[in-house]
Amino acid sequence: METTEQLNKAYADLLAQQHFVESELDYTIPEKHKAQLQQLAQLGNSGVTVFDLYRKQHLFWSYNMEMLFGYDPELMEQKGNDYINSRIHPDDYMTLTRNGIFLLNFVFALPLSERMDYKLINEYRILNQAGHYMRVIEQHQPLELDPRGNIWLAMSMMDVAPDQDEYRGVRYQLLNYKTGRFVLPYSGAVSPDMPLTLTKREQEILFLIRDGLLSKEISEKLFISVHTVNTHRQHILEKLGASNSIEAVHYASQLGLLQ
Amino acid sequence: METTEQLNKAYADLLAQQHFVESELDYTIPEKHKAQLQQLAQLGNSGVTVFDLYRKQHLFWSYNMEMLFGYDPELMEQKGNDYINSRIHPDDYMTLTRNGIFLLNFVFALPLSERMDYKLINEYRILNQAGHYMRVIEQHQPLELDPRGNIWLAMSMMDVAPDQDEYRGVRYQLLNYKTGRFVLPYSGAVSPDMPLTLTKREQEILFLIRDGLLSKEISEKLFISVHTVNTHRQHILEKLGASNSIEAVHYASQLGLLQ
Repeated sequence: METTEQLNKAYADLLAQQHFVESELDYTIPEKHKAQLQQLAQLGNSGVTVFDLYRKQHLFWSYNMEMLFGYDPELMEQKGNDYINSRIHPDDYMTLTRNGIFLLNFVFALPLSERMDYKLINEYRILNQAGHYMRVIEQHQPLELDPRGNIWLAMSMMDVAPDQDEYRGVRYQLLNYKTGRFVLPYSGAVSPDMPLTLTKREQEILFLIRDGLLSKEISEKLFISVHTVNTHRQHILEKLGASNSIEAVHYASQLGLLQ
Repeated sequence: METTEQLNKAYADLLAQQHFVESELDYTIPEKHKAQLQQLAQLGNSGVTVFDLYRKQHLFWSYNMEMLFGYDPELMEQKGNDYINSRIHPDDYMTLTRNGIFLLNFVFALPLSERMDYKLINEYRILNQAGHYMRVIEQHQPLELDPRGNIWLAMSMMDVAPDQDEYRGVRYQLLNYKTGRFVLPYSGAVSPDMPLTLTKREQEILFLIRDGLLSKEISEKLFISVHTVNTHRQHILEKLGASNSIEAVHYASQLGLLQ
């Protein structure tokens, strides 16, 4: 079982994998975005923020984050991300961090030309003005890559969730907004501390699962028992954090394990 | 039980209550919005549409409605709202129409200065490109009032829902985005065909409920039996479509029945 500290460290380590060169970052770019972001917040009445993955701080914070969600702009100014994190329901924080790790791993594995094509949509609980938990929907997406293709600026749009069930944890989707297709939700067992590798046999079996073969057919093809096939299957699901074969195939293909 | 036709008629009747004078409507205004709406769609990767309540047609339809949600732009052009409605899950259509009716009634009852302050957030099912149901979140809000205070242009922002449970019906919230407060979800029993009036006794009892009195205390105060109080209570809940007393008080106060 991972601890919050382990997860935070894994996330920080991942962020540190991006090598920025300060002189290559043109800070007039976020300035130019500001008017548009302001309009986005005003027209849509959504909370809009921009995070700088190089400086590891917010560059933009829309005026309505206070009235919509009760964020204190002064505390935000003083404490930054620590303040934001302190308002997230503790049961949701770990899942959100895991999603962040998944998103970074996922995007790092993409060719540069596809890095801007995805949105992570999280629904989770934060404290509101009155000190009660409310559900919000936050859509994360890259706003700018640097000249090396690093994810430099990330945008978030925050809205009130239609479901205000305070006893439910995080819901999320990763969406390719150019195709409208979902990347299946990541189910949480994979941590970047355990680099994900399938054995040759597991990979072989996953290919056959992808091709639609049943366990019995796989066992006949590979001259092993059905029981052995099912044991491999179970290990594959566990490694991928998948709850069924379809999820496993999608997830493995997203991670480049089916090539 | 209402039929779809009754609900559609009730909605059309409500829309017809707004009296527009064509010469007062400045159609350069929506033109000026278009660049901003385009940006909103592009930056947020949300579907953005604008509906004209005078002409009863869409004036804006963002380029990404097809790739995100599978709307065919040609069919949209030809058939307009009929096409949009045909893609909504039939079990969700009635609730959405009821929500639309509630929203109009609610906004009509507001002073002009507050008519722009609310967002209706619906989560419901539409057919996607592949012909399967997907859940979307649509945020409706007024974009422009006419010089008489009529709701002239309404904007909608559509996003993919984090919850993709295809067996669940509509979820919704009505939010005052200036205060961050929810108007409690309307629970659906009130139809504009039955104009909502409480008897003098019901109103009297609702006031006492609001003041925190229990049924027994109300019965003592009004010299009636607890059973009679509870019968009135039940009628009040039914008339207001409320599922408990707190909801009834909020809802009645929103409808101006507690003045």
